[in-house]
Amino acid sequence: MIDRPRRFGGWTGALAGLVAVTSVAAQEAPPLQVPAKSVPVPSDVSPQMAKIIGAPLRSNWNIQPKTGEAWKPVAEAGAAALAKLVPGMLERLKVKVERTTIDGVRAFILTPEEMPPENRNRLLVHVHGGCYVLNPGEAGLPEAIFMAGFGRFKVISVDYRMPPEATYPAAHDDAITVWKAATRMADPKNMAVFGTSAGGALTLAMVLRAKQEGLPLPAAIAPGTPMSDTTKVGDSFVTNAMLDNVLVSPDGFCDDGAKVYANGHDLKDPMLSPVYGDMHGFPPTILTTGTRDLLLSNTVRVHRKLRDAGVEAYLQVGEGQSHAHYIRDDTAPETRKVFEEIAWFFDRHLGR
Amino acid sequence: MIDRPRRFGGWTGALAGLVAVTSVAAQEAPPLQVPAKSVPVPSDVSPQMAKIIGAPLRSNWNIQPKTGEAWKPVAEAGAAALAKLVPGMLERLKVKVERTTIDGVRAFILTPEEMPPENRNRLLVHVHGGCYVLNPGEAGLPEAIFMAGFGRFKVISVDYRMPPEATYPAAHDDAITVWKAATRMADPKNMAVFGTSAGGALTLAMVLRAKQEGLPLPAAIAPGTPMSDTTKVGDSFVTNAMLDNVLVSPDGFCDDGAKVYANGHDLKDPMLSPVYGDMHGFPPTILTTGTRDLLLSNTVRVHRKLRDAGVEAYLQVGEGQSHAHYIRDDTAPETRKVFEEIAWFFDRHLGR
Repeated sequence: MIDRPRRFGGWTGALAGLVAVTSVAAQEAPPLQVPAKSVPVPSDVSPQMAKIIGAPLRSNWNIQPKTGEAWKPVAEAGAAALAKLVPGMLERLKVKVERTTIDGVRAFILTPEEMPPENRNRLLVHVHGGCYVLNPGEAGLPEAIFMAGFGRFKVISVDYRMPPEATYPAAHDDAITVWKAATRMADPKNMAVFGTSAGGALTLAMVLRAKQEGLPLPAAIAPGTPMSDTTKVGDSFVTNAMLDNVLVSPDGFCDDGAKVYANGHDLKDPMLSPVYGDMHGFPPTILTTGTRDLLLSNTVRVHRKLRDAGVEAYLQVGEGQSHAHYIRDDTAPETRKVFEEIAWFFDRHLGR
Repeated sequence: MIDRPRRFGGWTGALAGLVAVTSVAAQEAPPLQVPAKSVPVPSDVSPQMAKIIGAPLRSNWNIQPKTGEAWKPVAEAGAAALAKLVPGMLERLKVKVERTTIDGVRAFILTPEEMPPENRNRLLVHVHGGCYVLNPGEAGLPEAIFMAGFGRFKVISVDYRMPPEATYPAAHDDAITVWKAATRMADPKNMAVFGTSAGGALTLAMVLRAKQEGLPLPAAIAPGTPMSDTTKVGDSFVTNAMLDNVLVSPDGFCDDGAKVYANGHDLKDPMLSPVYGDMHGFPPTILTTGTRDLLLSNTVRVHRKLRDAGVEAYLQVGEGQSHAHYIRDDTAPETRKVFEEIAWFFDRHLGR
């Protein structure tokens, strides 16, 4: 049994610094004092997912590189580690990948060994995550491989420019350049865009920008746990802090990554905080998050905004999962189910 | 900025007692030590919802009555307070209510003043929440009023028997008795069942039982934050403990209420923990929960189970909301949106 707390130890108020940041509109009630917790790995997940959920907090979550040059070695070390996992993923999921350049933008083309007839005229565009500073090259591929493999779609994954090579709007420009090119390769009615975290935000931003520029829209999108609000508004930035073992804190590495990419550009611009964008006319959208995700609120807020705009929008939430846990291990049944759900949604909304 | 915790105060381990309960299948990693937090009311909710979210923890959350007789004064005091709010709700939402008895079961019939033509042959059945021990009589009506008012449907609300009057399976029997009678009043293809918390679990249990008994199934259901697992499995039982200001703790009042109703019956029986039931053949289902809900996991686990069974299932999650916050204040825009979403889902799946 849990005793009702009447006094609090030294860590009370550890997150109190967030109050000033998140309470943009003053809400009168005093903050709730939540005691420290010892949180076990949930029993109702697969052994593979239990391993991901049970991992300690990301070791470098509180580094705060302030320049693109300072990010570079961090990104390179992370990418080298991730890239090693790619060949195994490609083999297990029977996906082939080739590097290419599309209208000057670096990209990869992923093709499943077997493509069902209904997917032969379909084409997906993928934008990877990593706080706009991480996962260059092959390191950005896991989610694209999972989608190509579990969904058996052809996928173009955009290896967009990041700091120190370039800052905002370079990644956005590269993504929209590839989108434009892709709409000449297939019928946009047969196409979808997807991505996780910064890639989820880019997915939403691509639709906002396509609307602005009068470009064809995709027939569906799948933003996974999108960084939809870089201004730190969202309840789970507080409630899931120090619980999400990937992003860990709203003041952690990802915040600095986004700021370095923004390079002074207003973070409330819907291009960087798409939850503030006008979502009328958006294509059907499937959103993915987890119960421990620091961006749980930023995902459900996008869902609500889409529904308010009359858009068909569908939400899936992974039990016990922190930020983007579903793009870690293709052998976890939870991973397969997330991508099968997205594939089901795409199949429902894409032409053939 | 949040410091990374290296030492923990007196409240570390306050929830450690849960480990033994939830780790039915041993998951190897050590528990994550989450420091105490000071959690403000989120800035991105309406003033009405901010008031609900900002309320202190329910004052009697840790009472633990062990008999129906001990629950009775608690239920009566709560019901008297809630019943006072009902006339205002009926007036604002333009709904009429009459008491009745259906095949021996106490019930209410709710009728909106104006019913659109497409709803005239439709009929909804409502089962209220309250841990199987609370909200007798008018106190069980708010959700039924919101559905009748915002959705403009005719609703039968079941005032089922509870301890000390009767224990399991009395509430289940009453609910299914009313369902059977209702299927003689309207075409089941034009009908839906809904309810929140214990009422969400009853909604799921009614479908399981209708399947077993070969009764007609409703065309859609809306279990809100269902008590789908009374065995305390579910990650948010830990992660949202002391944060959800309604249920507060898996070891709080609601657990005892369910046990008093179960009266020794196996809590893992799908009638009392419907997440373990066979959901093949279930009708389209819309589930509602909140980011701070103690039953967030129990809601998303049902969503996943339904999808695994090939059922069309749709999830909505309220920003910052604890357990069943959406049935508190009909003047909160968030409340209206939740019921409009359920009405949209019913309209999509019910015949006319």
